[in-house]
Formats: sequence, C-alpha cells, structure tokens
Amino acid sequence: MSRVFNFSAGPAVLPLEVLEEIQRDLLDYAGSGMSIMESSHRGKEYSAVHEEAVANTKELLQLDDNHSVLFMQGGASTQFPLIPMNFLGAGQTADYTNSGAWAGKAIKEAKLIGNVNIAADCGKEIPTRVPSESELNLTPGAAYLHITSNETISGAQWKSFPKTEAPLIADMSSDMLSRPFDANAFGLIYAGSQKNLGPAGMALVIIRNDLADRVPENTPTMFKYKTHIDANSLFNTCPTFTIYTYMLVTRWIKKMGIDALYKQNVDKAAKLYAAIDAGDFYKGTAVLECRSDMNITWRLPTEALEAQFIAEATKQDLKGLKGHRSVGGIRASIYNAFPTAGIDTLVSFMQEFERTNG
Amino acid sequence: MSRVFNFSAGPAVLPLEVLEEIQRDLLDYAGSGMSIMESSHRGKEYSAVHEEAVANTKELLQLDDNHSVLFMQGGASTQFPLIPMNFLGAGQTADYTNSGAWAGKAIKEAKLIGNVNIAADCGKEIPTRVPSESELNLTPGAAYLHITSNETISGAQWKSFPKTEAPLIADMSSDMLSRPFDANAFGLIYAGSQKNLGPAGMALVIIRNDLADRVPENTPTMFKYKTHIDANSLFNTCPTFTIYTYMLVTRWIKKMGIDALYKQNVDKAAKLYAAIDAGDFYKGTAVLECRSDMNITWRLPTEALEAQFIAEATKQDLKGLKGHRSVGGIRASIYNAFPTAGIDTLVSFMQEFERTNG
Repeated sequence: MSRVFNFSAGPAVLPLEVLEEIQRDLLDYAGSGMSIMESSHRGKEYSAVHEEAVANTKELLQLDDNHSVLFMQGGASTQFPLIPMNFLGAGQTADYTNSGAWAGKAIKEAKLIGNVNIAADCGKEIPTRVPSESELNLTPGAAYLHITSNETISGAQWKSFPKTEAPLIADMSSDMLSRPFDANAFGLIYAGSQKNLGPAGMALVIIRNDLADRVPENTPTMFKYKTHIDANSLFNTCPTFTIYTYMLVTRWIKKMGIDALYKQNVDKAAKLYAAIDAGDFYKGTAVLECRSDMNITWRLPTEALEAQFIAEATKQDLKGLKGHRSVGGIRASIYNAFPTAGIDTLVSFMQEFERTNG
Repeated sequence: MSRVFNFSAGPAVLPLEVLEEIQRDLLDYAGSGMSIMESSHRGKEYSAVHEEAVANTKELLQLDDNHSVLFMQGGASTQFPLIPMNFLGAGQTADYTNSGAWAGKAIKEAKLIGNVNIAADCGKEIPTRVPSESELNLTPGAAYLHITSNETISGAQWKSFPKTEAPLIADMSSDMLSRPFDANAFGLIYAGSQKNLGPAGMALVIIRNDLADRVPENTPTMFKYKTHIDANSLFNTCPTFTIYTYMLVTRWIKKMGIDALYKQNVDKAAKLYAAIDAGDFYKGTAVLECRSDMNITWRLPTEALEAQFIAEATKQDLKGLKGHRSVGGIRASIYNAFPTAGIDTLVSFMQEFERTNG
C-alpha cells in the first residue's frame, strides 16, 4: 500500500488512524459480531456511537444548552432551501452576503422561497474575497443574515464573524472544526461532512433551538429542523456509517486539540502561501486578508502551464490539485487531516517546476 | 472474529464477501493511493463506481430507456413529500393505499401537499395484510397511485402489483431487488438503502423520465427529480461510500442471479413460516396470502414469553428479533444477504424454546 497526497476539495483526505480503525473493526464492531454498518440505528452499539458524536461536537464547540447538534442528509445544498423554509416568514426579508459560488447557490434557493436582500456582493470580484463587516447593508428586522464562512472554490475565508441583531447563519462546509470560534453566537451553522468531518453523506447542523419554532405547521416533517431536534436526528434511519466515521474524526480532533489543529492549519497554509509569494511565477487568487487556510488557490502565467503543473504533480502522487472546473487554476485543499509532509512535498515540487518552466 | 446472525430490520446484514472487499481496499482503492471514501466524486475512480452502480441497477431491473436510476439522500421518509411536490398538481388527486405504518407515513406527508384519496385501507387490520387489486377505489385521472410493496413492520407484502391508468409509485424500501418484477411498469420506485441494498444513507429511485417534467418551476433545486436525472445524481456531492457499497452489493446480486436469489428468499421464508405453523405456540401476524418473504412477524402466547424468547435468542447470537416498538411481537428480517444457516439455527431454537416453554 502506498498512500498519495490527496488535495481533493471533497470528498477529501481522512486521518490515516481513523481509516485504520474503521478497517480493523469492519466485520465485527466492538465484539457485536456485526459491522457497525449492519447495526440497527436503535441498537446499543450504534446508540453509543451516536451519543458520542453529539457529545464530542458539543465539547469541541463548547455549545450551550440552547443549541442542538443535528446529523442530516442531502448536503449543504439541501440546507439552502431548508433555511428559508424554516426561518423566513411571509413579509420578512433575509439578508445574504454574496462571496462567490457557494453563497450564490444559497441565495438562488432562498429567492425561490421568500424575500432576499443582498447585504454585500463581491461574488464576482477577482482577486476573490469575502465582504468586510463594515460594508454590510443589513435589513432592520431581518429574519437572519446568511454568510459562507469559506468559499471552497475561490479560496476566500471570513477571518472573523459579523455581530448582528438578526440570527447569524453560516455555511461552514469547508472550514467547520478547523479553528476555534464562538459557535454559540450563531443561529445556525451547517457543514457538508465530506471535507473536515468524514465521508460524504451527512450534513452537520448546529441550531439555536428557539429558531426551530418559526417553521410553518404544514412544512413536510423531514424538512423541519424541529423534527430532527426532537428526535435527536433519529426520526428516520440516519446515515449510521458516516456518523460513525464522523465520531472517530471528532475523537481524533479532540486528541489533537482544536487550538493545536488550528495552529497547524495556519502553518500549513502559510508555508504554501509563502511558496506562492516567493516570486512572480505563481499568483494567489484571493486578496491577502481573506486567504483561506483550507483551500489555497493560485494561478500560473498560462493555462498551458497550469495543465502541465497538474499533470506533473499527479505523476509525483500530488493528486487533486486542479482548480474547480468553473474557474480553472490550481487549488490545494488542505483540511485538518492533510499532513504537513504533503505541503513540504508540494512546495518542493513548486520550486522545481518554476526552476524548469519559469 | 465471530459473526452473529443479524435479523435487524435495517440497517441490516450485508454479504460477508462485500464487507471483506471493502475492508481489504479501505486504505488504497484500486491502486489510487487513497480510500474510496477520500476520492473526489468527480474523479476517475469514483466515476467508474458510480457508472457501474447505475449499469448494474439497469441490468438487474431490465430497465428501458424511459427510466432513470437515481441515488438520493434522506431515506424513504424524504421521498414521501418529494413525490407529491413533484407530481401532484393543484386540483389533482393522488390515490394511496394504506397497508400499515409506512404507507401511513407516506399518506400523512402527501396530505400536507395536496388532495389524497385513500384507495383502500387495511392499515389497522390484524392479521395484517395489503389490499387486493379488486378492492381499490381509484380516482379517474388520478395524479398517481402509491403503494407500499412490503410493510417492514407488519410483515405484509404485495405479491403482484396492480395495473393502473395512473402512474404507479411504490415504496419498495424493504423488498427492492429481492425478486424479479416488471420495473418498467412503474412511474417511480424508491427504496431506502439500509435493507437489501447497502448501508443507510442512500435512497435508490427509479423514475420514468417524463414524469419529472410535472414539477412546478419554483420548487427548490434539490427537491426536483429533474435535477438529479439531468446530473446523473451528481448535482451535488453524493454519498459516495454508500453508493460504492451498493455497487458491490449489486455485483453480488448479479453473480447470484436475481431469480436464484428470489428462490432462496422464498425458501428461507417458507422454512420459517413452516416452523411458525407447526403448532399453536407461534402465531403468524400476516394473513397467509400476504406473508412477506423479507420480514417474518409472529407472536407468542404472552408478551412475557416474547421477551424471554428474544432474550434467550440473543444469548445464542440470534440478534435483532424484537418486533418494532410500535407493535411488539417477534420479527425476523431476512433480506437477500441473510444466510440460510441463520434460518436453520433460528428454527432449531424455536423448536427447543417451544419444547421448554410450550
């Protein structure tokens, strides 16, 4: 077995020790005589997994009792309509910031449901960025303010979060549990699992309980956050194996410590940005103060050189560096589980590639 | 390692050789240097998995070109509202048969969306059963007729399907791919994955393409079947690992042959029903002609004996025999992957238990 360096934006690299534990226990989990995949979602083995996944999340985020932890399905893309369906009443307005592709998708779905005000729009700017708090044009009495904490495609990230009267809602799909922050200040946080949290197939949702009461009565049961709060995410069969893997990942994060993990993430990103900034050959895509610690994006002088860069990197087992098909360029997604050794290898490759082609 | 006999209703037992293959390849899939869980949903390794999962499904069901295979999220419970949201126009009526708990849930959600006619109602009858075709009170020009092909809780199953003018829609969560049938006669079929198909976290949907055009324009993107048809279930990140496991399960079904598998399922169920019918101690829950081949349900003379039966069976590694909490009794779920050896062991246990306690 030889493992490559996997820069994929998601599904993405998982901690090796988590994969090894899954592999070890795959046919017989905790002496139960069955795989955790085969265990009833209401049986004692899975119940312990589920409870630990909730407890680890609460501990890592230091959540207060007014917030619940939910495991839902359908990815962040399903949260886009669920948020306005649950929180945006008739005659109300929801504020959204547009910071790029993912914020744009959230806005598009919200507009199908109700009134939307774009509180700031830098969605199409290059260099890419997220709005600053001072430029937000907020609606008095807004149902909520929605932001996208990290734009996976453009590589721009909110470094601090706005303070608002309206409940603050964030799509944290690509930076959840990668840094310490005050989760209790949020009305709702959601994150697709396939970046920092586990395999694809689960959306982690943190919700302030009182907001769940806003939902119209005739909303389908599965589309009400209240359903999932009341049932501890067990109203129907939850994606048990994905939640099991997420539980193991949160154990790993607890062992690392979220502060230490954050420092490691910042250091990894800084090494890569230093390599980009070392000369004129590489050019970062995001403005300096918004550079993401998770998705590092940059360009080469020509698209032909970019294609060559990706092809040669792939041959050296540096995989998944191609920028999103909508924007091109290079993207290195370096989530929590991405090892520092992979950054060092990439930096050496970049230096060598520039020497040969610069 | 010692594997038990797992009678869980779902998540449920998977073919051992499928689990062994997953275990073997968990850290390095097909020489890619990464787990299939870590592979991009748009990369070549996962793309091949996805295409094979679709192709195997089409082959097993002998689907025509007017039908598409979709992998969705949220379980059957999310299909309940999606079906009327997509197909039940204003002023139209949808026919539903009520055959028990799961049909009842589908009906409840449909009533939130539009007009519903209960075409037959045996939902609360004991012995449990499904309606016969002759008793259906169908609406002329109905948007569709919805049935539940197998009631997982009550253990009653449709043995043949009604012929209707309106598109026929079936929840086949607990008997999909367990028997040959004419899938092309259906407008839509859906099945949660965690019984015959794989781990929890995926809903298999078979849809007649033209029906997808009925959806109102302002329906959220993720809630339109059309979105998933057009994107081959890759509009957003699909649950890649669950689909990978499903692909391996469909490979296994193809190797077994669906006719041979069906015969094995019938034989397994017949052995168990014979043990139930051998005397007066055990009493089957479903009427004879509706007895499920997947979920075998029966009672003992007293609830105290039932509790004792379950406790003693569990000690002998016959796990998951407790009936659903809403109805009590005993339930043996014996899906495709449940081995005949487990049936024989259970039958011996039943005989011994009756000798001791009868």
